[in-house]
This record gives sequence, C-alpha cells and structure tokens, in this order.
Amino acid sequence: MRNTARWAVTLGLTATAVCGTLTGPATAALYAPSALVLTMGHGIGSATAVPERAVTLSCAPTPSGTHPAASAACAELRGTDGDFGAPAPGGQAVCTREYNPVVITAEGVWQGRRVSYERTYANECVKNASVTSVFAF
Amino acid sequence: MRNTARWAVTLGLTATAVCGTLTGPATAALYAPSALVLTMGHGIGSATAVPERAVTLSCAPTPSGTHPAASAACAELRGTDGDFGAPAPGGQAVCTREYNPVVITAEGVWQGRRVSYERTYANECVKNASVTSVFAF
Repeated sequence: MRNTARWAVTLGLTATAVCGTLTGPATAALYAPSALVLTMGHGIGSATAVPERAVTLSCAPTPSGTHPAASAACAELRGTDGDFGAPAPGGQAVCTREYNPVVITAEGVWQGRRVSYERTYANECVKNASVTSVFAF
Repeated sequence: MRNTARWAVTLGLTATAVCGTLTGPATAALYAPSALVLTMGHGIGSATAVPERAVTLSCAPTPSGTHPAASAACAELRGTDGDFGAPAPGGQAVCTREYNPVVITAEGVWQGRRVSYERTYANECVKNASVTSVFAF
C-alpha cells in the first residue's frame, strides 16, 4: 500500500514535470510590469518624425534602463500615477517663438497597463521647459 | 582696437551661452538608438490582452535592459536586421492543441526606426516553440 502511494506520488510529479515542460515555465509575476520606451525627435508627429533619441525605462522591481535619471523618472511617474503629460514643476523658461517642432513619445507598459503617449512642442526649448524628468534625456 | 576685439569675442561667447541655454543641450547621438519594450500576455490581441510580462531591451551602445538574455536577443535582432517574426532555430516541439491564445508585442525603436510588432499564438507552448530568444522572457 505504501509503495503504491509512493508510485502514485512519483507518477504525479513526473506528469507535472512533463506538462510543465510542454506548456513552458509558469512565471507568476510578483508585481505589475512597468517597461517603457521614451523617444524624442524633430517633426510634427511620431508617424513621420525620426526618433533621434530613445531610452528604456523600467520601474519594477527597481528603476533601471538607459534613461539618464531612471530613479527620478520612476518616482515622478509613480507620483502622477503614470501621467506622462504632467506639467514640469518650477518657474517659467524664456524661449524663442521659433517653429521647429519636437515630438516626444512614451510606449510600453505602466503598472500592468499598456500606454501610448505622444505630444508635440513648437521647439526644443518649449519642450525642455514643459516636461518633467521623465522626458529629460 | 584690441579691447574692442576682446569685447566682441566676449559678447559672442555670452550670446552662444545664452542661446545654448535657450535651445537646450545639443546632444548629437553617435549611433541610431535601439530601445524596445517586449511584452507577453494572454489574449487574442494587444488591444485587449493585459501584458503579464514586459521587459526592456536596449542594444546600443551595449546590450542592456530587464530582458533576461539581452546580449543574445540583440545579436539575433542584428542577425535578422530587426525581423521580430524570424522563426526559431532548432527542431519541432510537441504541443497540445489547446486554444489559450498568447500575444507577444515589440514596440519602440530599432536602429533609428520606429517598430511595432504583434503576433498571436494558439497557446504558450506554440509561442515558446516559435520565437527566438528575443521573446524568451
């Protein structure tokens, strides 16, 4: 009886192992993923503008990516609950009225939900004065 | 005369400094950016599927990101010239015919051009057997 039970357990474990292999590893995420690509390029929209700069930003489990200030960017996104259009803190900047449009985009996943953000500014100075550290790269 | 020249130079440098501040830093990239977000989720399409896993992948200047095998993934993408649908090398896998669709996506920038890739597989086993290391996460 004991041996039968042992065999049953062994068979069960083998079946689990085989099925596990067939269906691939069951990777249960401990947190909702946050993985983003942020871009910046000259043009009136992302459909036509060539991305001149592009950085990755991951905020879970720890801030990382090619973004130059990943920790600050993640903190700001957490603070605004993933609002990519949140205004820059601080005073006003002096910009020329030159029209040389710059488009910024954010694509990917923020805390488990898909995001796609795009905004165009009249020129790079206006962009720099308007965005938070999320788009400072 | 000498003093006038000196003043002219000083004025010129000041103007450059001010204008430089106004228009923001001129960051000339040495290479075309490659920054991607790769996702995987259950569902028939990215519009409805919740991304269960999402990783970042940057391939320039060096492979990096939360992708578990960034170097291999970048090498494969370079080898296929950024073809996200390139078939997996190797033999056939044994999969059930269970219909539990899985959708994979790639968004971002590959060597300076914007990319948006999406593909749905009948189940996770079929997905795992079909994709290269780019989507093995």
